[in-house]
Amino acid sequence: MSGWLAIAGLGPGAEELITPEVSRVLSEATDLVGYGRYVARVPERPGLTRHASDNREELDRARQALQLTTEGKRVVVVSSGDPGVFAMAAAVFEAVDTGNPSWRNLDIRVLPGISAMFAAAARIGAPLGHDFCAINLSDNLKPWDLIERRLRLAAQADFVIALYNPLSSARPWQLGRAFELLREELPETVPVVFASAVSDSAREAIDTVPLRDAVAIRADMRTVVLIGSSRTRLIPRDGGQPFVYTPRSAEA
Amino acid sequence: MSGWLAIAGLGPGAEELITPEVSRVLSEATDLVGYGRYVARVPERPGLTRHASDNREELDRARQALQLTTEGKRVVVVSSGDPGVFAMAAAVFEAVDTGNPSWRNLDIRVLPGISAMFAAAARIGAPLGHDFCAINLSDNLKPWDLIERRLRLAAQADFVIALYNPLSSARPWQLGRAFELLREELPETVPVVFASAVSDSAREAIDTVPLRDAVAIRADMRTVVLIGSSRTRLIPRDGGQPFVYTPRSAEA
Repeated sequence: MSGWLAIAGLGPGAEELITPEVSRVLSEATDLVGYGRYVARVPERPGLTRHASDNREELDRARQALQLTTEGKRVVVVSSGDPGVFAMAAAVFEAVDTGNPSWRNLDIRVLPGISAMFAAAARIGAPLGHDFCAINLSDNLKPWDLIERRLRLAAQADFVIALYNPLSSARPWQLGRAFELLREELPETVPVVFASAVSDSAREAIDTVPLRDAVAIRADMRTVVLIGSSRTRLIPRDGGQPFVYTPRSAEA
Repeated sequence: MSGWLAIAGLGPGAEELITPEVSRVLSEATDLVGYGRYVARVPERPGLTRHASDNREELDRARQALQLTTEGKRVVVVSSGDPGVFAMAAAVFEAVDTGNPSWRNLDIRVLPGISAMFAAAARIGAPLGHDFCAINLSDNLKPWDLIERRLRLAAQADFVIALYNPLSSARPWQLGRAFELLREELPETVPVVFASAVSDSAREAIDTVPLRDAVAIRADMRTVVLIGSSRTRLIPRDGGQPFVYTPRSAEA
């Protein structure tokens, strides 16, 4: 039997946002590998072995998945959102690059998913309708001064900025520092969207404040923060959240 | 009868990449609005009126969809990829912002889709595994010097760069100029991925060249161009395309 490895995106949370491609591959798998919370999103069934692990062990998890593949298993590594965006796909290819040379010729596919930032944007309007960037705010794998430099250059380029992993108990001050720095570069009226647990109907929470009022405490591990460009606009509505969008045009 | 408007992403091309949420809404619609090629991707059925239009008329198309909604229709505006990324969602909210004030209180939802850049990235590995940006290379709605400025700042930030709308018959020289400028800012060995018609099995074409050898003629209207950061790596494989990925870490 010939094994394969699929690195699959489960989307932000709702069943309706999982692609048929991912559902099919999950139904064909013999082994499921991933962070406990994401593995738990896939129903148990006979013939499917679940390997849940802690969130910090991405490279170990990737190597385990590659090893199972060499043994002929049909392995799915699950990520939330899109697996290529600050998730398991890069970890698997790092493991391939630095591991057993035979791993390079395995059948490895990445199956895209609905990313957290696009799901968040969709809920509020079209804040990413013009040029934008995505920055992982975690300084576990890169120096904080590089993150500060990127934030400044992104603001100077007038990108809309999506921040992933904005806050955790181990990284309590970074997001507040990012807002402080961005207030030096951008108009203080720029809209900031905090989007938490998007598409998880029981827990979803989205709100929009001007940059001047943005405080880090609003975010947690399940939040994506979208910071508008100088041209991002609000459309007020009767008795509801405003729409937030960035015009396609950059003309005055 | 109360109308609604859904702005839906059909993904890059393959049926298997359309979310169940989008499929459901398409089955409930009375009216379909969009660029002819995208409208043609949705099968005809009794009770569904198709309004196909030319690609250049986004705002007119948005207003038509809003008008149909006020008449009580269940309207789906279709985009390829994700509707929030250089597609119809921003055009609809521009039309709302500048149009009849009653439009603000219509039932308008954006339904995310698999974006071209994430589908392209998935096909080749994990090139967007670290911080990245997306730039629409069309200068129809923004001045070319702003695009040049963004490209330089993005390269200085060492973002992976996704270029949308890289080339058309009306914009023949811009992509070549972008490569020229990026060669001044980035190592000439940086991998450049040209990904055309991703997931359209008959037409998909993907290849990777070093920045030094990147030429604009390789791209067309259905191409997304991904330009690596200084850390993006290739993993050679026996008799196949190399994997391309950007490590999660930015440490030396």
